[in-house]
Amino acid sequence: MNFTQINALALIELLGVLAFAFTGIIEARKKGMDIIGVYTVSMITAFGGGTLRDMMIGQYPLYWVQHSAYALMLLGFSIAATPLPAKFYQNPKVTKIFVILDALGLGLFSTAGASIAHHAGCDFYISALMGVVTGVFGGIMRDIICNEIPNVFRRNELYATCAALGSMVFLMCLYTGLNELPATLIGLTFTAVLRLVSVKYRVKLPI
Amino acid sequence: MNFTQINALALIELLGVLAFAFTGIIEARKKGMDIIGVYTVSMITAFGGGTLRDMMIGQYPLYWVQHSAYALMLLGFSIAATPLPAKFYQNPKVTKIFVILDALGLGLFSTAGASIAHHAGCDFYISALMGVVTGVFGGIMRDIICNEIPNVFRRNELYATCAALGSMVFLMCLYTGLNELPATLIGLTFTAVLRLVSVKYRVKLPI
Amino acid sequence: MNFTQINALALIELLGVLAFAFTGIIEARKKGMDIIGVYTVSMITAFGGGTLRDMMIGQYPLYWVQHSAYALMLLGFSIAATPLPAKFYQNPKVTKIFVILDALGLGLFSTAGASIAHHAGCDFYISALMGVVTGVFGGIMRDIICNEIPNVFRRNELYATCAALGSMVFLMCLYTGLNELPATLIGLTFTAVLRLVSVKYRVKLPI
Repeated sequence: MNFTQINALALIELLGVLAFAFTGIIEARKKGMDIIGVYTVSMITAFGGGTLRDMMIGQYPLYWVQHSAYALMLLGFSIAATPLPAKFYQNPKVTKIFVILDALGLGLFSTAGASIAHHAGCDFYISALMGVVTGVFGGIMRDIICNEIPNVFRRNELYATCAALGSMVFLMCLYTGLNELPATLIGLTFTAVLRLVSVKYRVKLPI
Repeated sequence: MNFTQINALALIELLGVLAFAFTGIIEARKKGMDIIGVYTVSMITAFGGGTLRDMMIGQYPLYWVQHSAYALMLLGFSIAATPLPAKFYQNPKVTKIFVILDALGLGLFSTAGASIAHHAGCDFYISALMGVVTGVFGGIMRDIICNEIPNVFRRNELYATCAALGSMVFLMCLYTGLNELPATLIGLTFTAVLRLVSVKYRVKLPI
Repeated sequence: MNFTQINALALIELLGVLAFAFTGIIEARKKGMDIIGVYTVSMITAFGGGTLRDMMIGQYPLYWVQHSAYALMLLGFSIAATPLPAKFYQNPKVTKIFVILDALGLGLFSTAGASIAHHAGCDFYISALMGVVTGVFGGIMRDIICNEIPNVFRRNELYATCAALGSMVFLMCLYTGLNELPATLIGLTFTAVLRLVSVKYRVKLPI
């Protein structure tokens, strides 16, 4: 890997974490929570999926426990995002940027989750499943805490499906001998593009 | 153990997993979830209790993570069960068979859970508690995700009580020197019969 | 440490566990749950926070799994509390005592949680966060199971804030070379007093 590529992935990870955290902040604010609630929901949305994955495969220490910078950053982000007026969140341009960041985050979280499970010895199917868990369970936990039926389970545009297929594309790349970085970029791009196409054309699962 | 007995337990386990998964599918369908939601809820209902138990006693790798066949089977099962008309689920014969399978599953999950905790070094009371967790927490998680107060906590026919008493019967058999298999069969039968009797005669807890 | 001090902490822990369990019993009863539900919710309220912390830092065996006396005690407590009339819970004197016990429990759980994370190698911020998790996540899980938006996230009197600041005071005491016991007593007292002051004067977070 060269430094530009690694930095590109780190940047996508950062943007993905922020996008995920942001959906948590919006949801928590809608429910009238205070800053404690907003921060907790943003942390759970951003790190809940990866935490559940690591607990299920017994991988310790957890990433955010070992690297506290992310937890501190989300605290600052939660405080900063709080005084923003409701109008800001409804601005179509903000919504659009946010959907793109979320799609990139979904792609990176899913492929990274599949990769970690793969290297921990899980087989193809379980690794793909762990990719989906990493990508979507933060949002599921957010919705449960906010007392909603998880959004990802409603018949909306494709979301978990993108994570599942993207994880599988990533794993197939690995299985056919590709290196980690190109495989990640392919899986990530596949997931994000599929997500954005499905949002644009309102593609839904038939069942 | 002879092969017939082991195969009988494996068959009960399979039927129990399917029965548990089936309750998840029905609940998820009632809430209008798509196939992603249906599959997730069926997985959580079937494996949530055992996963929580193993996370609480630090037992890794998780069973379904190591044996991906079950996760794949439930995917096929979720897809297959989806086009079935609502009438099918309301058919009294289907309901009856399903209550019997669920009682068998509850019996096997509870005794197996108590057994795993016992062999991991837990004492009598905690092992029995882990039996209950294994038997009933999948259903509790199902109800939380579907945004309901868990069914098992309502004043209905005995359910967790059967798991608790069945686990204790199983553990007492072990403590008095019985082998794993006969103890399992006794605990399982006790749980399932108590459950079916309580359904038939609408037995409820006094408090 | 001398015995009187250790016994004082053990007594506070006992009272804290009982106070936390009691909030679970009240909430579960309000929702019409039977004794199984009441017991489960009381266990989760009392031990959910510490269990989540230990799962996140990979600390096994869990405290209540190794020491089954607490789990058994809560069973007796759940059964004993059940026939109490609703009037008892609404008695202002009972409410007042209960708020004090809960504040002491919050103080002890938070500092103890921060201490365990600190000794497991977590840095200052993550240790403080684990203190908060230990102090407040039992209540969050109680509210999720009872199908409510967690009380701690609503704009009420300070609660998680007390746990956060108390954990930090405790950790700063440790960092400046104080021993475990005086640091615990200072952190605990700080948390409990802040909580009680905020209840008395209805102090809320500005955001």
